[in-house]
Amino acid sequence: MISGPPEPEPSADSTVTLPIIGIVRSCFNDRFGIPRQPGLAPHATAELHFRSPYDVAESLIGLDTCSHIWVQFLFHGTRHRGWRPTVRPPRLGGNRRVGVFASRSPYRPAPVGLSVVALDGVEVGSRGPVLRLRNHDLADGTPVLDIKPYLPWSDSLPDALPPQGFDASPAPRLKVAFNEESRAVCERAAGQGLRLRELIEEVLRQDPRPAYRQRQAGHVHGMCLHGFNVRWQVQDGCAEVVSVQAQEFRRSI
Amino acid sequence: MISGPPEPEPSADSTVTLPIIGIVRSCFNDRFGIPRQPGLAPHATAELHFRSPYDVAESLIGLDTCSHIWVQFLFHGTRHRGWRPTVRPPRLGGNRRVGVFASRSPYRPAPVGLSVVALDGVEVGSRGPVLRLRNHDLADGTPVLDIKPYLPWSDSLPDALPPQGFDASPAPRLKVAFNEESRAVCERAAGQGLRLRELIEEVLRQDPRPAYRQRQAGHVHGMCLHGFNVRWQVQDGCAEVVSVQAQEFRRSI
Repeated sequence: MISGPPEPEPSADSTVTLPIIGIVRSCFNDRFGIPRQPGLAPHATAELHFRSPYDVAESLIGLDTCSHIWVQFLFHGTRHRGWRPTVRPPRLGGNRRVGVFASRSPYRPAPVGLSVVALDGVEVGSRGPVLRLRNHDLADGTPVLDIKPYLPWSDSLPDALPPQGFDASPAPRLKVAFNEESRAVCERAAGQGLRLRELIEEVLRQDPRPAYRQRQAGHVHGMCLHGFNVRWQVQDGCAEVVSVQAQEFRRSI
Repeated sequence: MISGPPEPEPSADSTVTLPIIGIVRSCFNDRFGIPRQPGLAPHATAELHFRSPYDVAESLIGLDTCSHIWVQFLFHGTRHRGWRPTVRPPRLGGNRRVGVFASRSPYRPAPVGLSVVALDGVEVGSRGPVLRLRNHDLADGTPVLDIKPYLPWSDSLPDALPPQGFDASPAPRLKVAFNEESRAVCERAAGQGLRLRELIEEVLRQDPRPAYRQRQAGHVHGMCLHGFNVRWQVQDGCAEVVSVQAQEFRRSI
């Protein structure tokens, strides 16, 4: 760059303090099973609840006409682990190291996540405004810093080149099957409007097991979705769901 | 949403403190003239300089293979003004009010900006790594919280619906003309590799005047680009550049 004017004094501050404007209530009750990007689980639902003084309906005027929003959030439950200059993204098999700034890893200097999610509705209830989100990758309890409308003419660059190795949407890795009992639980849930089977399929298809677990065939894994404990095991490229149980506090289905 | 398990305790914190990892050195020496979105000024250039302890080359391994990055930054020079629940976006003529969360206004609860910019290069010099950015909308001195690679298969949604009124990329509003003297300065700059004329055209085409100034035909406006004071006036839909002067501290061109 050609030399410019004397530099305006950059902020001498080395940190900034920002407000948490809201909290996500999500179908992903724990971290295990959360898709590694938004857009992989169309049946994943969540709500964004605003906190005072950000819980004013006026601040959302006009948002209901847009289909997608950016959520800028704090990575939840991983912040205590800090960051390192390089990471081993699961996308690259957990072996290759890349720079943290060439990744979307949660373990970064400023642990701020960025996800575009579908906006299914804006509701204003007695406890303030609530956004209904879908097709997301947000853990339950995620603190939110900001939301913005997605502007396709500015944000959508279909021809952009991602870093090498992140070339395409991750292909489904596993087939998914249900045993009879777990299938029956999902059918009862569907009768009450909960698309549990679809969500389980979307999540397991991507193989959420950490790399070191993928060598342990037959191990029974567990995760919690929509308040259901889901247990499954992997054999010959297929994840078989062996049980789906409503947690005790949940109304029985 | 169907009732889930007992909610994990959300962070009781109402704020979070985040590090500033770097500072932008930009062709936009002051706020006037900065495009209202990235992607409108292909000849706008900038550099991102990392701050210690984030200035380690390892943290950028693999980034050089990607064409675009997200920059999450702090709005610079506007933070003291705070926020209101509604804003009047220039895009909507400065009259219609929308919720701050339905806008990309800088005056928001957490004044965090989000821009996708072209990445022209990653350089590692004696003062640490530097990213060369292009086609951006970042003011000189902008503090940066985080950068991430743009992943088109996750971030690019060409069919997303923006909020009503933000339907398309802003059309050019003005023609741009140069008087003889200012054209000659730009030609000398071009001889030194500085695409000043193209940048001035890209900026003025969008009509950077605030709404209240747009009623004042004949008023001479000024802005500073790449260390040059640029003065122009608008008449009959045309912005005429009347002078382009290197600031005193700048080597003469």
